[in-house]
Amino acid sequence: MIPRAIVLVSGGMDSAVALAEARAAGFECHALSFDYGQRHVQELAAARRVAKAQGVADHRVLRLDLRAIGGSALTDDVAVPKGRSEATIGTGVPVTYVPARNTIFLSLALGLAEVLGARDLYVGVNALDYSGYPDCRPEFLRAFEDLARVATAAGTEAGARFRVHAPLLSLTKAGIVQRGLELGVDFGLTHTCYDPVVRGERVLACGRCDACILRRKGFAEAGRGDPVPYAT
Amino acid sequence: MIPRAIVLVSGGMDSAVALAEARAAGFECHALSFDYGQRHVQELAAARRVAKAQGVADHRVLRLDLRAIGGSALTDDVAVPKGRSEATIGTGVPVTYVPARNTIFLSLALGLAEVLGARDLYVGVNALDYSGYPDCRPEFLRAFEDLARVATAAGTEAGARFRVHAPLLSLTKAGIVQRGLELGVDFGLTHTCYDPVVRGERVLACGRCDACILRRKGFAEAGRGDPVPYAT
Repeated sequence: MIPRAIVLVSGGMDSAVALAEARAAGFECHALSFDYGQRHVQELAAARRVAKAQGVADHRVLRLDLRAIGGSALTDDVAVPKGRSEATIGTGVPVTYVPARNTIFLSLALGLAEVLGARDLYVGVNALDYSGYPDCRPEFLRAFEDLARVATAAGTEAGARFRVHAPLLSLTKAGIVQRGLELGVDFGLTHTCYDPVVRGERVLACGRCDACILRRKGFAEAGRGDPVPYAT
Repeated sequence: MIPRAIVLVSGGMDSAVALAEARAAGFECHALSFDYGQRHVQELAAARRVAKAQGVADHRVLRLDLRAIGGSALTDDVAVPKGRSEATIGTGVPVTYVPARNTIFLSLALGLAEVLGARDLYVGVNALDYSGYPDCRPEFLRAFEDLARVATAAGTEAGARFRVHAPLLSLTKAGIVQRGLELGVDFGLTHTCYDPVVRGERVLACGRCDACILRRKGFAEAGRGDPVPYAT
């Protein structure tokens, strides 16, 4: 039997590359996305495009109303910051941080892994360009693996070990662009912007939120054109 | 300022006692329940009754579709076992185990704790009568505390430490009944059964699922009458 992996696919460029890495490592990939009340719900359409283009075994979109918790510019009535300098992004915890989001998402991936007999979870987190999110750090990923061992029925079996793979962890955004292109990722299918502009049927990235700024910097430093359209 | 605690309130007897313990410890209590596609959705009405009766600061019911994951008799198309012996209950992992449920629920409680500035989480898990659920063991709770420290923005502050309180952890079901009565818990407001029988406007506990069997045993051993109605 081909080993299975659960891959968190947000629709953004990082998780698209993480999915390509899971495929390249030989896993049968089961994609998991979250409809969590995010303001940039357009990323879910991108997640479907990415999952389909990469031929996943299945793709689940799980509904989860994080607006009941609030506390983030992505789920609450708080403005998304615009036009911050690159030097500012990555210092401190930004208002777009969704409290405990990766813990919540990995927990749900862990539940699905138990059901499907998978022991491998793939996430597109990245420590260098992590924008100050605490749950994108290596110590978080190791602590989650330790938790998974005692949290699950599968973890109590001898020799069972869940692994959280974060193949982008130590890459720059430019490195992610390069690696994605090597693996054949179509970045034109992805969506990164926190606060997109909708013009008729077109969805344009704002170009000025932290996510857009880091993405554009990555493509610029890689010397590649970004295929997604921008409003500015 | 009165310190705040997030209390997971399922509507069952255990979390009702955990909430009473959090109040007795002096916390301002913020109750959190989950509408996760459970077959015994009646427990949510009980959660509302329990939270209201104990005067919580607020009560959130978060929607989360665990049916997208499946794998449990509580969320999937799998029969709830009936009439098992007490000796059988607690050996092995039962089909009513929801994969990674407590990890998922605690993760969401952690997110809410960050938003509300709370550092204390209360859960009604119980190691003695835990029915073979891996995520009701002390080592799970300690691993979750370790994860919380590195998973959150608050956890990165010096001296910050999230605590997971499980005041029922080493109590028997009879001990939980006794402690609840000492704290003034109205067990008539709670709902425990996995597979209730609805007769008109009345909700009757089946009396034969694992949860009912353990509950009835607890009341019997405590020498108290169980105020909820049973079908058998």
